[in-house]
Parts: sequence; C-alpha cells; structure tokens
Amino acid sequence: MMGCVFCRIVAKETPAYIVYEDDKTLGFLDHLPIHRGHTLVILKDHYESLLDIPAEGLKDLILTTQKVGAGVIKAMGAEGFNLVMNNGRSAGQEVPHAHFHILPRFRGDGLRIGFPRNRYPEEEMRKIQEAIKKGLS
Amino acid sequence: MMGCVFCRIVAKETPAYIVYEDDKTLGFLDHLPIHRGHTLVILKDHYESLLDIPAEGLKDLILTTQKVGAGVIKAMGAEGFNLVMNNGRSAGQEVPHAHFHILPRFRGDGLRIGFPRNRYPEEEMRKIQEAIKKGLS
Repeated sequence: MMGCVFCRIVAKETPAYIVYEDDKTLGFLDHLPIHRGHTLVILKDHYESLLDIPAEGLKDLILTTQKVGAGVIKAMGAEGFNLVMNNGRSAGQEVPHAHFHILPRFRGDGLRIGFPRNRYPEEEMRKIQEAIKKGLS
Repeated sequence: MMGCVFCRIVAKETPAYIVYEDDKTLGFLDHLPIHRGHTLVILKDHYESLLDIPAEGLKDLILTTQKVGAGVIKAMGAEGFNLVMNNGRSAGQEVPHAHFHILPRFRGDGLRIGFPRNRYPEEEMRKIQEAIKKGLS
C-alpha cells in the first residue's frame, strides 16, 4: 500500500520518529501532535479499521500499545493517557491505516475531549440494547 | 471491588443495559452517553488502567471490543466509531475500572474531539523519541 503514509513509514520510505519496532508493530511520534509525546501505534500490515484486523493482529496491536503507553508515561512523567482509535472518516480518521493514538496527560493540561453528554430516553435505550444484541448475533 | 460501579454491574447488583456478556468481558450502554448507542466494554476482573491488565486480559478485552464495535455499527447504521480509553483522572477517567468507549459516528453529527494540534520543534521530537525508547527498555 505505497499510497498509504503509514505503510511508507513501515517501509522506511517516509521518515518518522520511531520509538518502538518489532516484527508486527510500530510506534512513532505523531507528526502533527496534540502535544508533546503524542504517539501512534500501528500494525505493519495494512488494515483500515479495527473491524478489519484479524484476532492475532488485534492481540499484537494491543500488547504493543500497552508497552508503548507505559514507555510514554514514563518518558513524559505523565499522570495518565488517552488511548484513541478513530475508525472511519466520520469519526475523524485521517490516515486509513488503523492506529491507536497515545496522548500523555497532565493535571491541568487544559485539554478537554469536547464531547457533550446527553441522556436519551430509557425506552430508547432498551430498543438500542436489543438492536445491538441482534447486531452481534 | 463492591465500591466500583462497574464491578457492581458485573455482579448484577446495579442494573445496566447489557448488550454482550461472556465469561471474561461485558458490554453495556453508557448511562450518561455522548449520544445514542454509546457503549462501554470492560473486563469483568477489576483493573484500573490499561497498564494494569495482564496479556490474556488485553486480548479478551480487544476481541470483545471489536465484536461489540461491529454490533454497534450495524445496530445504529453508523458510518464509523471512536474507540477511547481514558487512563487516569487527568485523562478524564471517571470510573477507575478500565473501559473502552465505543462511540458510533455519523456524517455531520456535529461531534468534534476538541483537541487542538500543535507541532513542537524537531529537536524536541528527537529528545522525546529517545526518552520513550529509554522508557520502553
């Protein structure tokens, strides 16, 4: 997938600040970070969304994400981190190669996930519960 | 951990709109959702952060998250979804039992992750890269 910027990073055709690499996965600094230490973790194989990744790949991806997350926390002296994967254009996914964002967080860093929370009626929650259960089977 | 609301949901002592359950994991609707279909996925065992979860648990969690994510997308007719885990109070974690948020997304739903993006100097990126690599070893 040489049209994919992350595949080109994997192939070392596009430079990146790589922080972790093994046979299956890669961690590197986001080139347009939210703030210092913002890191991405990907599978070297190209899958567009979380939903496309086979079970073995999911396992590799989450294990590396945990490892890199711990490293980022330690390196940045962070107190916590957000782990985010945007799947699909409508979710804000910019590069169509599934990637976890690791965003180190600090007390009073002023960042806020800008999503308001809105309850919806109990009756609708029941209907949606049933629809998801059905969607799962 | 009966002081933990998610452990009480696991124990069926607190009601929730459960959409998926197996031996290790549970999926249920967020009681204070960002919008319709906002779903949480947890391990039944209590771990506070991603960093605390053993390898086997990580695998169970991500596999269920993928499964429930696909169900949510299908049920809601969504075009994509955000997958988010907030780790630590400074990252906005409200319940200290590690959980993935699945947020179905639709074109023009008006939601925006409200994080500005800010480049930092190349020299600092190199230093941070080295610090994370060191943090990983």
